[in-house]
Amino acid sequence: MKQEKVAPAEGKLGIMVVGCGAVSTTFMTGVLMTRKGLAKPIGSMTQYDKIRVGRGSEKKYLHYKDIVPLANLNDIVFGTWDVYPQNAYQAAVYAEVLKAKDIEPVRDELEAIKPLKAAFDKNYAKRIDGDNVKDCKTRWDMVVELKKDIQDFKKANKCDRVVVIWAASTEIYVPYDEQVHKTLSQLENAMKADDREHIAPSMCYAYAALTESCPFIMGAPNTTVDIPAMWELAEKTKMPISGKDFKTGQTLVKSGFAPIIKTRSLGLSGWFSTNILGNRDGLVLDEPANFHTKEVSKLSTLETICKAEDQPDLYGNIYHKVRINYYPPRNDDKEGWDNIDIFGWMGYPMQIKINFLCRDSILAAPLLLDLTLLSDLAARAGRYGIQRFLSFFLKSPMHDFTKGEEAVNNLFQQYTMLKNAIREMGGYEADEEID
Amino acid sequence: MKQEKVAPAEGKLGIMVVGCGAVSTTFMTGVLMTRKGLAKPIGSMTQYDKIRVGRGSEKKYLHYKDIVPLANLNDIVFGTWDVYPQNAYQAAVYAEVLKAKDIEPVRDELEAIKPLKAAFDKNYAKRIDGDNVKDCKTRWDMVVELKKDIQDFKKANKCDRVVVIWAASTEIYVPYDEQVHKTLSQLENAMKADDREHIAPSMCYAYAALTESCPFIMGAPNTTVDIPAMWELAEKTKMPISGKDFKTGQTLVKSGFAPIIKTRSLGLSGWFSTNILGNRDGLVLDEPANFHTKEVSKLSTLETICKAEDQPDLYGNIYHKVRINYYPPRNDDKEGWDNIDIFGWMGYPMQIKINFLCRDSILAAPLLLDLTLLSDLAARAGRYGIQRFLSFFLKSPMHDFTKGEEAVNNLFQQYTMLKNAIREMGGYEADEEID
Amino acid sequence: MKQEKVAPAEGKLGIMVVGCGAVSTTFMTGVLMTRKGLAKPIGSMTQYDKIRVGRGSEKKYLHYKDIVPLANLNDIVFGTWDVYPQNAYQAAVYAEVLKAKDIEPVRDELEAIKPLKAAFDKNYAKRIDGDNVKDCKTRWDMVVELKKDIQDFKKANKCDRVVVIWAASTEIYVPYDEQVHKTLSQLENAMKADDREHIAPSMCYAYAALTESCPFIMGAPNTTVDIPAMWELAEKTKMPISGKDFKTGQTLVKSGFAPIIKTRSLGLSGWFSTNILGNRDGLVLDEPANFHTKEVSKLSTLETICKAEDQPDLYGNIYHKVRINYYPPRNDDKEGWDNIDIFGWMGYPMQIKINFLCRDSILAAPLLLDLTLLSDLAARAGRYGIQRFLSFFLKSPMHDFTKGEEAVNNLFQQYTMLKNAIREMGGYEADEEID
Amino acid sequence: MKQEKVAPAEGKLGIMVVGCGAVSTTFMTGVLMTRKGLAKPIGSMTQYDKIRVGRGSEKKYLHYKDIVPLANLNDIVFGTWDVYPQNAYQAAVYAEVLKAKDIEPVRDELEAIKPLKAAFDKNYAKRIDGDNVKDCKTRWDMVVELKKDIQDFKKANKCDRVVVIWAASTEIYVPYDEQVHKTLSQLENAMKADDREHIAPSMCYAYAALTESCPFIMGAPNTTVDIPAMWELAEKTKMPISGKDFKTGQTLVKSGFAPIIKTRSLGLSGWFSTNILGNRDGLVLDEPANFHTKEVSKLSTLETICKAEDQPDLYGNIYHKVRINYYPPRNDDKEGWDNIDIFGWMGYPMQIKINFLCRDSILAAPLLLDLTLLSDLAARAGRYGIQRFLSFFLKSPMHDFTKGEEAVNNLFQQYTMLKNAIREMGGYEADEEID
Repeated sequence: MKQEKVAPAEGKLGIMVVGCGAVSTTFMTGVLMTRKGLAKPIGSMTQYDKIRVGRGSEKKYLHYKDIVPLANLNDIVFGTWDVYPQNAYQAAVYAEVLKAKDIEPVRDELEAIKPLKAAFDKNYAKRIDGDNVKDCKTRWDMVVELKKDIQDFKKANKCDRVVVIWAASTEIYVPYDEQVHKTLSQLENAMKADDREHIAPSMCYAYAALTESCPFIMGAPNTTVDIPAMWELAEKTKMPISGKDFKTGQTLVKSGFAPIIKTRSLGLSGWFSTNILGNRDGLVLDEPANFHTKEVSKLSTLETICKAEDQPDLYGNIYHKVRINYYPPRNDDKEGWDNIDIFGWMGYPMQIKINFLCRDSILAAPLLLDLTLLSDLAARAGRYGIQRFLSFFLKSPMHDFTKGEEAVNNLFQQYTMLKNAIREMGGYEADEEID
Repeated sequence: MKQEKVAPAEGKLGIMVVGCGAVSTTFMTGVLMTRKGLAKPIGSMTQYDKIRVGRGSEKKYLHYKDIVPLANLNDIVFGTWDVYPQNAYQAAVYAEVLKAKDIEPVRDELEAIKPLKAAFDKNYAKRIDGDNVKDCKTRWDMVVELKKDIQDFKKANKCDRVVVIWAASTEIYVPYDEQVHKTLSQLENAMKADDREHIAPSMCYAYAALTESCPFIMGAPNTTVDIPAMWELAEKTKMPISGKDFKTGQTLVKSGFAPIIKTRSLGLSGWFSTNILGNRDGLVLDEPANFHTKEVSKLSTLETICKAEDQPDLYGNIYHKVRINYYPPRNDDKEGWDNIDIFGWMGYPMQIKINFLCRDSILAAPLLLDLTLLSDLAARAGRYGIQRFLSFFLKSPMHDFTKGEEAVNNLFQQYTMLKNAIREMGGYEADEEID
Repeated sequence: MKQEKVAPAEGKLGIMVVGCGAVSTTFMTGVLMTRKGLAKPIGSMTQYDKIRVGRGSEKKYLHYKDIVPLANLNDIVFGTWDVYPQNAYQAAVYAEVLKAKDIEPVRDELEAIKPLKAAFDKNYAKRIDGDNVKDCKTRWDMVVELKKDIQDFKKANKCDRVVVIWAASTEIYVPYDEQVHKTLSQLENAMKADDREHIAPSMCYAYAALTESCPFIMGAPNTTVDIPAMWELAEKTKMPISGKDFKTGQTLVKSGFAPIIKTRSLGLSGWFSTNILGNRDGLVLDEPANFHTKEVSKLSTLETICKAEDQPDLYGNIYHKVRINYYPPRNDDKEGWDNIDIFGWMGYPMQIKINFLCRDSILAAPLLLDLTLLSDLAARAGRYGIQRFLSFFLKSPMHDFTKGEEAVNNLFQQYTMLKNAIREMGGYEADEEID
Repeated sequence: MKQEKVAPAEGKLGIMVVGCGAVSTTFMTGVLMTRKGLAKPIGSMTQYDKIRVGRGSEKKYLHYKDIVPLANLNDIVFGTWDVYPQNAYQAAVYAEVLKAKDIEPVRDELEAIKPLKAAFDKNYAKRIDGDNVKDCKTRWDMVVELKKDIQDFKKANKCDRVVVIWAASTEIYVPYDEQVHKTLSQLENAMKADDREHIAPSMCYAYAALTESCPFIMGAPNTTVDIPAMWELAEKTKMPISGKDFKTGQTLVKSGFAPIIKTRSLGLSGWFSTNILGNRDGLVLDEPANFHTKEVSKLSTLETICKAEDQPDLYGNIYHKVRINYYPPRNDDKEGWDNIDIFGWMGYPMQIKINFLCRDSILAAPLLLDLTLLSDLAARAGRYGIQRFLSFFLKSPMHDFTKGEEAVNNLFQQYTMLKNAIREMGGYEADEEID
C-alpha cells in the first residue's frame, strides 16, 4: 500500500454548469443555503457519509473530508451556460422545485449567476427553443469560444481550479463511429471540418474543459466522453472524466433492488419500468431521437447485475422493458412504476411492484455536488482518465469497452469502489475486491 | 489464516421438521422433486450461489459445495412432528401451495412421511386445534419423549446426523426472564417444575435436539433459543443454534431496501409496513398474543440499518410501524405493502411504495434447505453456539445481547458474513470487514 | 307533482362549526378566498354541479342555485367552538394544509373568528388536551350554555338563520341504549341526571342546536343523532338533521368502486382497506375506543352495495377488513391502500389495488359547504328530520333503522337521491327510482 | 309506452366466432361447463343481473330471462374460423387461461369445434402467422366463401338463427374514407375491385353475416362496422350491429372511475394509463400500425365523461395518455396501472393509482355471451342497425357520428341504457333519461 500524494484543496473552486435549469439551480441554491446554515445537503455523500478506514481494532468511521482534502463549500464559485438568458434566481423560481422560503434568502447570490451564451445546435434538441446562443460557424469555433469562457470565468472569479459539469438536456443519440470518435486527431479534424452529424455540441464543452485543465462530468445520457478520442485527450491533459447520466429515481432503485434478488438466488423473468415526468427533461425525451439516447443508457443496468451466463436457470430469460412518458401535470415530480416478475422454489412466480414518487432535481442536486468535489479531488490526486469510482453516481457508468471492461451497475459494488478510492487517496488500505 | 478442519458429509442426514404444514411440505416436496430432476431448487444459496474465493489473479467463483463439504440432497431423510396426523402428501395437498403436477411424482415418498405426535400446549397457540399430541404431564416429560423420538428416527433411518428445525406456528410471546432463562440449570429446573408460563413447548424441542447432538434452528419468531440458558447448552453440547424467523417477504425486502436509502445518504422519516396473509400462520397471528411475538421480531430490522446515532440528520426521527392482517381470501399468497417516506436535498420529501405479491412457503422452503445444510456443516466444522453467519436467512438474527452485540440486519452485510464463513471453512481468506 | 314551497334565502346565514381544526379552517378559508375571487371551491356540488331538470325536449342542465334558492356565499358568517383558544388564522397556519399564499389574503377575517369555549369531556377523547373548555357541572349545563352561545352569536352577527355542524374529533363509541336514547324525555332526563356514560358532549351540541331552530349535521362518526330520541326532537322542532361522518378518501372511493363490480356482475371475495394518516384525527383514532366508532361507520359501506342475499354466488362470502393507522410523517395527507379480490368467469380470481394519496381537509371542506347550505335549504323547504338526500356526502348515512330502513351507500344511487331532492324542491319531477 | 313484439327464442342458436384463441375458447368452455353445472358464468349480465321493472309499489327485481325471451344456454351451437387449424380443445390448452380441471370435462365437445379456414390478409396483422387460410383472389371472393360457410354451418347444425362475433386480433387502422365507406354500393364496388387498402378482411365477415341475416358484433377495436356503408347494409337486411372492442380491464375501470370524480365535482388534470400484456393480443399490438387502432379506441373514454365544455374549471385541461406494452412474462394475465391526478378545494392536487391485475379472457368471455344473446334478442325484437344499448359491453361504443351523436362511455349511464332496452323489450316503462 503506497500513500497517494494529494494536493491540498486551497483557493477557490469554480463549478461551471452547462444548463441553468431545474437541476442546476436546485444544486446551486442548496449549496448557497447550506453555507448560510439554512438548509441541509441531504443525499450528499461528501457531506454526510462516513466510511470505515483501518481494520480490526484500528478501524474507525470517518467523514470523507477527514480522510482526504476536499474543497470546502465556502470556496465554491458558480458559473453556467444556458440557451435561456434568465439568471439563476429567475430560473429557480421558474423551475418550481423549491419553495420561496428556500430560495429567497440567497436571492442576491443567485441573481448574480448569469448564463453565458450556450454552444447550441437545435438539431440536437428540437424541443428546446432559447436564443441565448453563441453564433458559431463551426464546431471548432464553439470550442474556441468555450475555452475563452472558462479562462474569463476563472480570472474574473479568481479561481484556482475549475470543474465543468453537464446538467443540460439529453441530446439525440450519436452512435460510436470508428472514423471520427476513435482518436483525438480524428475528433479534432471533425470539429474543424464542422462534422455536425458526429460532433455533438456537448463534445465541444468536454474538449474545451479538458484542454483548459478542468475535469469534465457528463450528467445526461449523451455519449460525449464515452469515446476513445476523449479518453486520449484526458490522458494527454491528465484530467479526470466521468459519466454518464445522473443516477436518480428509477435506475437508482433498480441498481439497488436487483442485487436483492440476485443475493437471494431468486429467479427473474421480467422487469417492466415506466416513468412519468413533466419537466423540460421530459419534454426533450418526448422526441424519439432523444429518448433513444436515454433508453440505451437505462437498459444496461439490469443485465450486468443479474447475468444470464452466470446463472442461466435464474437469469437466462429476462424480459426487460423501459418506457419514459412525458406527462406535464407533474412538472419536476417524476414518478416511476416498476413491475418485477420473479420466481422462487420450484419456479413459482411472484411479483413486486415499486412506485417511486420522487423529485428529479432533489435527487440530482447532491450528485452534482459530489461529482464535482470528487472530480476535483481526483485531479489533485493525479488520477486522470475514466473515474470508475464515480460509477456510484451514474446511471450508465463509463468503462473502457475497447479493453473488454464491463460497467459495474450494482449499487453496493459501486459503493465499495467509491469507498476504496477514498481510502486509497487517504492512505488507507482498500478492500480490494468488490464482491 | 488457518485451515479449519471440517469433517466430511458422509452418510445419511436426517432433517426433522417441527410442523408439517405449508412451509414444511413445500420444502420436502421440492427436495424430493429436485432429486428426481423434476424441479429446480430456486432461491437456495447452497444449490445456486457462487462466491469469490481468492483474490486478485487467484480469484475464482465457486459453488458452496466446491468450497466446503455439504450434504448431498440424495442423502437427506425427512421426519416431522405435527398436531395434525395427516401425512406429508395429504398436508401438501391441503396447503394448496403447489400444483398437483408438482406433487404427484413424489406422492409415495411424501405419504411415507408421517408426523410424530407433537409436544403441544394450546395456551401457546389458541387458534390451533389438532389432536396428534403427546400426552405429557410436564415440560420435562416433553423433553424425554422428544429425545426418544429423535433416537428412534435416527436408528430407523440409519442417519449419521440429524438436524432439527422449527417450521411450526408462532407461539405467544415469552419475554426473557432472568430467573428462568439465564442459566441452564434454571431452565432444567423450570422444565422439571413444569413452569408452563416460562417454558414454551418449542424450548423442549430445542433442549431435546441439542442434547441429542442435533443442531437446532428456530424458524418462527419464538424466543426459544434467544436466551443465555440455551447458549450454555449449545456450548456444552458443542452444537450450533440459530434463529429466529425465516426471512421471507416483507422483511427480506426491507433488509435489502433500507441499505439503498442508507447507502445514498438519503433521509428517512417513516416506514409503514402492512401485510395480508391467509394461511394458518396468518390465523395464528390474528391472536394478539402471538402477533406480539412477531411484531417484536419485525420491528428491529430498520433501526439497526439506519441508525439515529450515526446520522441524526437523516435517521433521528423515523416513525416505523408494522401491521399484520389475517385475510383468508389469499391463503398462502402473502402480500406486503410498504410505504416509505424519505427526504433528500434540503429536506424535500419523496415517497416509495413497494407492493410484494409473494408466496410464503415458496420463499421459506429454500431457507429450510440452506439452514439445515449449513447448520450440519457448522457442526462438522466444530462451530458451535450462535451461528451469526446464518443471519442472512433470518428476520431477527440471534446475537449475544448480554455482551452488547448487535444484530446485523443489512442484507448485504449479512451476505458478506455468510460468504466469509464459507470461505473460512473452505480454507480461504475472509474479507474481515462487512462494511 | 306538487310544487314545494321554499322560503327564500334572505339575510345572513350563520355557520357555527364545532371544532376549529384543519377541516374547519380549510373550509372557512376557502369560502372567504372564493368570495374575493382568489380561489375556486372545487369539489362543491352546490357551486359546480349541474343537473338535468325536465325531460325529453324540455330537459336542461342547471346549477343548483338556478333550481332552488340557496344562500349566497357572501351572506355567510362563521362561528366556532374549540378546546384550543387559537383563532381561525392561527389554527389554519398550524394545520399546514394550505400554503401561506392561500391564507394571507383573508388573514384579518380569519383572525376575527375566535373559538367559543367548548363543551368537552376528556373521557370522550383522551388524546385531546386543550383548556378552552366550559366549566359545566352536568350535561344539562352544557346544553344551557351552548344554547346561549348560539343566541349570542346570532344576535351579534345579525343572522337570520344558523346551522350547526360538527367537524371536531371522533368521540368514543356510544352504543345505542334503549333506556336512554329511545325517547326525547329519556334523553332529557339523562342529561339532567348527568349520565356521562350515555350522553356524549356532541349530543349536547345537537340538542342545543335543534332547540334553537338550527339544523344539525354530524361530520364525525359519532352516533350523536343516530338515535330515535334525536329524531323525535327534530320532528318536534321541525329541523333537519343529518350524518354521519364526512365521506372523504377511502370510503368515497369504495362507495363508487363497489358499484363498478356490482354493475358488471363480477364476484367479490375480499376487500382489505388500510389507511395512514397523521393529523389530529389520526391521533384520536389511535385510541382503540375512538377507532371502534370509526370502524363501525366504515364497515357498513360494502355490504349494502354488494348484497349477499341478492347474489349469493357473487357476494355470499366477502371478507371485509378496515384498518386505520396513525402515522405522523404525513400530517393531513391521508393515504389509503385498498386491495380488492374479485373473481370472474368460472370463478377465476383477479385483483385490484387502489392507492389514494389524498388530503383529508381538502376533500372534507366542500362537504361542509354543501351540507350546511343544503341543510339550510331543507329547513326553508319545511323538510325536517333525517335528510336522506344528504347521504351522498356521508360515510355512514342516517336512516331510520327502527323502521327497517337501509342505508344507501352506493355513490351513484346517493347522487340520484340528491338530484331528486333538488328537483323536487325546485318544482320539477323527480326520477322516482334510484336504480 | 307500447309493447314491443319479440319473437320467441325457439330452436338452436348458432354462435360463429371469428378467431379461436384465448378469448373464444374461454367463452366456449365456460358455456359448455355451465351447461353441465360444473362452472358458473360469473360476470354475465344475462345470467346474473337482476333489474327493477315497474315503479313504486309495482316494482320488482327480475333476471333478464324473466323479462324478455332469451336463448337458453342449452340451445347454443358453436362454430369458428381461425388461421390456425387447432380445434377448440387444443386452442384452450395452448392458451393457458383455464386449468386442466376446468377444460377436461368438456374435452369431447371442444374437440368437435374445428376452425373453418379464415379469410385473412397478413398485411392487416403482420405478427400473425397461420396457414389455415382461404385462398381468395379478391375481397369479394372472401365474402362469397364466408357466406357459404355460414349457410353450411347453419344447415349442418340445424340452427334457426346464427350470430357472428369477431373475437380475433386487432387489424391495422383503417381510417374512414368517404369514397369507399360511405355508401353500400361504394363498399360493394371496392370489394369487387379488391381494394385491399380500404377493405379489411373483417369487413368481409360483417358483410357476409348481415347478408345471411346474422347479427354482427365487432369485439376488437377494428372500425369494421363503424362506417355508414355498413349501417346502410344493417338497415337493408334489418339486422343489429354493435361494436367495438370488448370492455375488459383498464377501460372498464376508467369508465366506472371517471364518473366517481365527475359525480363529486372534483377536478382532473391528468390520467396516465399503462398496460402490460403478453398474449397474442399483446403481440399484435406491439406492431405500431395495430396499436394505433387500439389507441384511438381507448382515448375517447375519458373526454366524454369529464367534459371540458361543461365544466371548464374542472376538466378544461386534462392530459390523457394511454400506453400498451407487450410483456411476455404474463401471458393472458393483463395488468393495468393508472395514475390519476385530481384536484379539490382551492385547487389542491391529489393522486389516485389503480393497479388492476386482471385476466383478459376471463373478463371478455361473459361479454361474448351477453353480446351474442342480446344481439339475437334485438334481432327477434325487430331492432336493427346500431345497438346503442350494448355500449355497456364495449370500449368504444358505436354511434352515428354523421348525425352528431356522441358515444356514451360512462359505465353507469351505459347500464341505464341497457336496463331501459330490456325493460322496453319486456313491455315495461323505461326510465327515459340516463342522468
